[in-house]
Amino acid sequence: MDYTQMSREELQQALDEQNKVLKEIKKRKISLDISRGKPSAEQLDVTMPMLDMVGSTTIFPKPDYRNYGGLEGIPELRALFAKMLGVEKDETIVGGNASLQLMYDTIQRAMQFGVCGSKPWNEGKVKFICPVPGYDRHFAICQHFGIEMINVPMTPAGPNMDLVERLVADDESVKGIWCVPKYQNPTGYTFSDETVERLAKMKTAAKDFRIFWDNAYCVHDLYEQGDKLANIMAIAKEAGTADRIYEFASTSKITFAGAGVAVMAASKNNIADTLSHMKFQTIGFNKVWQYVHYLYLQSTENIAAIMAKQAALIRPKFEKFEEVFSEEFGSGSGIARWTKPRGGYFISLDVLDGCAKEVGRLCKSVGLTITGVGDTFPYGIDDRDSNIRIAPTYASEEEFAEALQVLVCCIKVACISKLIGKSEE
Amino acid sequence: MDYTQMSREELQQALDEQNKVLKEIKKRKISLDISRGKPSAEQLDVTMPMLDMVGSTTIFPKPDYRNYGGLEGIPELRALFAKMLGVEKDETIVGGNASLQLMYDTIQRAMQFGVCGSKPWNEGKVKFICPVPGYDRHFAICQHFGIEMINVPMTPAGPNMDLVERLVADDESVKGIWCVPKYQNPTGYTFSDETVERLAKMKTAAKDFRIFWDNAYCVHDLYEQGDKLANIMAIAKEAGTADRIYEFASTSKITFAGAGVAVMAASKNNIADTLSHMKFQTIGFNKVWQYVHYLYLQSTENIAAIMAKQAALIRPKFEKFEEVFSEEFGSGSGIARWTKPRGGYFISLDVLDGCAKEVGRLCKSVGLTITGVGDTFPYGIDDRDSNIRIAPTYASEEEFAEALQVLVCCIKVACISKLIGKSEE
Repeated sequence: MDYTQMSREELQQALDEQNKVLKEIKKRKISLDISRGKPSAEQLDVTMPMLDMVGSTTIFPKPDYRNYGGLEGIPELRALFAKMLGVEKDETIVGGNASLQLMYDTIQRAMQFGVCGSKPWNEGKVKFICPVPGYDRHFAICQHFGIEMINVPMTPAGPNMDLVERLVADDESVKGIWCVPKYQNPTGYTFSDETVERLAKMKTAAKDFRIFWDNAYCVHDLYEQGDKLANIMAIAKEAGTADRIYEFASTSKITFAGAGVAVMAASKNNIADTLSHMKFQTIGFNKVWQYVHYLYLQSTENIAAIMAKQAALIRPKFEKFEEVFSEEFGSGSGIARWTKPRGGYFISLDVLDGCAKEVGRLCKSVGLTITGVGDTFPYGIDDRDSNIRIAPTYASEEEFAEALQVLVCCIKVACISKLIGKSEE
Repeated sequence: MDYTQMSREELQQALDEQNKVLKEIKKRKISLDISRGKPSAEQLDVTMPMLDMVGSTTIFPKPDYRNYGGLEGIPELRALFAKMLGVEKDETIVGGNASLQLMYDTIQRAMQFGVCGSKPWNEGKVKFICPVPGYDRHFAICQHFGIEMINVPMTPAGPNMDLVERLVADDESVKGIWCVPKYQNPTGYTFSDETVERLAKMKTAAKDFRIFWDNAYCVHDLYEQGDKLANIMAIAKEAGTADRIYEFASTSKITFAGAGVAVMAASKNNIADTLSHMKFQTIGFNKVWQYVHYLYLQSTENIAAIMAKQAALIRPKFEKFEEVFSEEFGSGSGIARWTKPRGGYFISLDVLDGCAKEVGRLCKSVGLTITGVGDTFPYGIDDRDSNIRIAPTYASEEEFAEALQVLVCCIKVACISKLIGKSEE
C-alpha cells in the first residue's frame, strides 16, 4: 500500500496501530545494535584455525620475521595481496591491522609533506569529493584535517561522473576522492566499468590529485556470482595515470576485524614516496602476524573458500532484510526504498524525506541502536534527512530479525506522522 | 701503553704491525654486523613459548578481542604496563608493534594539531633538545619534520641540566627534549634522581613543552642489581607538570623485536588529547596480539624472569667488550674510551678525535658493519668525529669476539695514523 496516497483517516488509523506495536516493543526492553559493520562472533569463529598456524616450534623464514626490518611487509603476503588486487608485488605495502591507519597516514603525509614531491597540502586549500551516502570514517578523517568535502551523489554505477569530472577539471584545490568501489558502504553498489575508466582517465586540474580506492570489500561476495569490479590500476597504467591511485584493503572482514592485516597498493612511484616517509615512523610492521596470515590464507583460491564460509553466515541476514522490507514496503509504499547488495557489509535505506532522524530517535527510545542518522554524509548532514545505513552482520539472525521488526515499526510511525503533518499544512 | 706519548718511530712500528693484522683480516673475507640494536636469534628463541599462548580453542575475553574496538588497548595489558612503568592504568595506551610509531605519531599530531589545545607546531619554529650522543631514529624524526635540533652533551648523570634548563627557560620555540633515561642509547648511562627531578620541575618558556621519555630499556638490566631510574611521572604529578611528559616503552626487546607491543604512558589530559586524534586513525590496535602478550608476560615478576634469561644471553657480549677493550686500550691508551653499561643494548665508544669516520671506513673495507659514524648525533654530524656506537647483541658470541678483534685493529690503524700525521704537522 502506498502511504502517500492514503487519506488523513487511513493514515491516522495506521499510525494508531503502529503506536500500539511500538508500545509493546518498548515493554520488551530490548537492547539491539545494527549500527556498525562488525562481524558476528560466528564469523570470527571461522578464523580460529588461524591461531594454530604458528607455535613454539615454528621456524620462521629469513631474514628472521621475528626481528626488526621488512618495512614493506613479508614477500609471501605482498605477493598474495597483489594477486588479490590485480597489481604487482612491488606495488604493495603490507601494514598493521588497520587499513584505516594506512589511509589516515597517507592523508597526513600528504598534508605534511605533499605527494611525490608536490607542495604539502597543508599549504593551501584542500577539497575532497565524497560520494554520498558514503563511509563515515572517511568523512571524519577529512573533517579532522579541515579538508572541505564536496558531496557527489552515488548512483548504481558509482558516483555521478559528470559531476566528478567537472569538479576535478575546474578546481586545483580538489585533491582527492574517496571511493569504496565494490559493494560501496553503505549502498552496496559496485562501480561500473565505465565509471572506473572515467576515474582513471579524467583530466584533473591538480597534478597531485589522488583517488583513495578503499577496496574494503574486494572479495566479499555474498553469492558465487559476485559483482565484477574493473581493475583501476591496470587501466590507469595504460592511461599513464597510475600515480593517481592509492588502493587499500585489509583482512579485517576476512580474518579478525580487530586483528587482521592491511595492505596498500600503489604505483612504484607512490610506494617509494610512501616508504620514504614511513621509514621514519616504523622499522616495520608485525611480520609474525603477517606470516600467521599468510599461512592461513595461502592463496586467492583459499581466500575465496574462506569468504564463501563468511557469506554463508551473512547472506541469510541480507536476505531477511529483503524479505521483511519487501513484505512491509514492497510495491510502492512511498515511504521506504533500499538497495539489494550482492556483497559487502551494508544496505542503504532511504525513508521518506525528513523522517530519518525521527526513525533514529524512535529506535533509540525502544533500545535499538542504528548507525547515527546523517553519518553517511559529510559533516553528518543529510540534507534530505532520509538515509539510514543498515549493518546486518553483527547481530545474530534472530536478533537481526527482531531488530528489523522494530525498525519497520519506527519507520512507519515516523513516516506516517510526517504524512499526517503534511496533510495538515 | 699511551699511544699519544709514543715517538714517531714507535708509532710507525705499531702501525706497521696493525696494518699486517688488517691485511690478514681482509683475507678472511668476513661479513659481520654490529651496527643495530637487534636481538640475536637465541634471544628471540626465548620468546617462542609465547606462540603457544592462543590457539583455535582459545576463548577471548569480552568485548571480543577479535573484533573491532578498544582503541586504548586491552585492560589486562594496560594494567601490566602501567605497573611496569609506575603509572596508572588509565594513563596508558597500548598500541601496535612499534613504540617508534607512537613517538612519530605523537610528534606528527603535535605538528598538525598542537598538544592539548596549543597552536599546531607547524605554525612556528620548533626546536628540540637532543642529548648527544643519542638515538639516531629520534634525530631522524626531527630532521624529517624540520625540527631544529640543539645538542646537549650527555654526562653519566644524564644530559647537562644547566644547559637544558637555560635552553627551555629562554626560548619558547624549544618544544621538546628526547630522553632515553635508563641505559641511554648509546652511552648506557641512567639519568640520576637529580636529573629526573630537574627535568620534571624546570621552568619552560613553552607552555606546550614536552619531554619524550623513551624508556626503551626500563626492565633491560644485565645484572640483578640494575640501575634505578626515578619515576618521572610521580615527581611531575607532585610538581604539577604531569602534562609535560610522554613516556614510551615496548616489548620489542622483551618478546619479539619486530612483533612486540608498544605502550605510551602520559597524564590523563595527554591520553585524552591523544585519543581524540587517534580515533580518526584507527578503530583499535591488534588486541589478539596484545592478549597473546598478556598471557605470556603475566606479571612484572615474570617480566623480570624473562629479562634475566635475555640478560644471560647478552651479558657475555658486553663483558667480552670490556675484557677486550680493557686489555687493548686499558690503562690510558689515549686513543679509546668507552662506557660500561649495566643494561640496555649499546656501548658508547669514543676514539681519538678525528678518527671515527676512518675507523668506520676501515671496518667496512674488511667486512665489518658498524653503526654509521656520526649517526649518534643530530644531522649525522659528530663535530669531534670520535663517537662510535657498539651494538653487541645481534652477533653470536663468537662473531662478536671476532668483530671486536677487527674493530680493535681498525681503531689502532686509524688513530696511530692520525697521531703520526699530527707529529708531522
